[in-house]
Amino acid sequence: MNERYLDDLKVGERFQSGQYIVTEEEIINFAREFDPQPFHLDSAVARQTMFQGLIASGWHTAAITMRLFVQTLNFAEGAIGLGVDELRWPNAVRPGDALQVETEIVDLRMSRSKPSHGIVRLRNVTVNQRGEIVQTMSASALVLRRSDTITQ
Amino acid sequence: MNERYLDDLKVGERFQSGQYIVTEEEIINFAREFDPQPFHLDSAVARQTMFQGLIASGWHTAAITMRLFVQTLNFAEGAIGLGVDELRWPNAVRPGDALQVETEIVDLRMSRSKPSHGIVRLRNVTVNQRGEIVQTMSASALVLRRSDTITQ
Repeated sequence: MNERYLDDLKVGERFQSGQYIVTEEEIINFAREFDPQPFHLDSAVARQTMFQGLIASGWHTAAITMRLFVQTLNFAEGAIGLGVDELRWPNAVRPGDALQVETEIVDLRMSRSKPSHGIVRLRNVTVNQRGEIVQTMSASALVLRRSDTITQ
Repeated sequence: MNERYLDDLKVGERFQSGQYIVTEEEIINFAREFDPQPFHLDSAVARQTMFQGLIASGWHTAAITMRLFVQTLNFAEGAIGLGVDELRWPNAVRPGDALQVETEIVDLRMSRSKPSHGIVRLRNVTVNQRGEIVQTMSASALVLRRSDTITQ
């Protein structure tokens, strides 16, 4: 796939990622390393919690979302995350769920400090195989401009 | 260490986590799985980027922060993340950095829908071994109340 530059995007444009299937093993491995809480670590213990079964760490969902976003947008030299707001997890992610990310371009502007780059504001919505929203977030990232469009 | 409940916290209270040393291998492994961008994947390639060397994914920093936070606060039956705002990465995390998290309790209130629980609002600031801030965030989490304090 061709690499993407700021100049290739339009405000309001939407992108659909591929699917990522989350396994029980991955949920437990991520939790052991980064979020060792009972509802992320062990199916039997998780059945006794309010979730009535194993759920993925929200940070695992965020990391999977990043993977799907990066693969879909494929920015030339990468997208440098500047910040994230309104990160929410309205529904739990469970073993076997197939996640997919829709990215909407919210705003585009040039960078004052780095004329070679611009700043894209976007909204990422992550859904499961039933269309239920498992994560929403707004983010800003620094991405490269095409060199033939840089005038200052 | 004793498990912590909502009732044990005070607004304005601060907690210091232990240290977590981030290795080059971990940075690359996390990036391969979740954030496959040139400045996270390969030291030689990363030297050619604006970072002039390998840096960790912001989502890796966020995940390490969660680990340090969970271990330090040690909530009874865990803390259920409700949302995160103002997640920022003002400085890059590099191989060998020793990260530490300071948690400040910003607000405490009872949950209306779940009288057994309350909602803690907090601010997590993650610093490296030189005291430079590598991540800031505000978060809300649902945590358990001591059963002898629940009146409604």
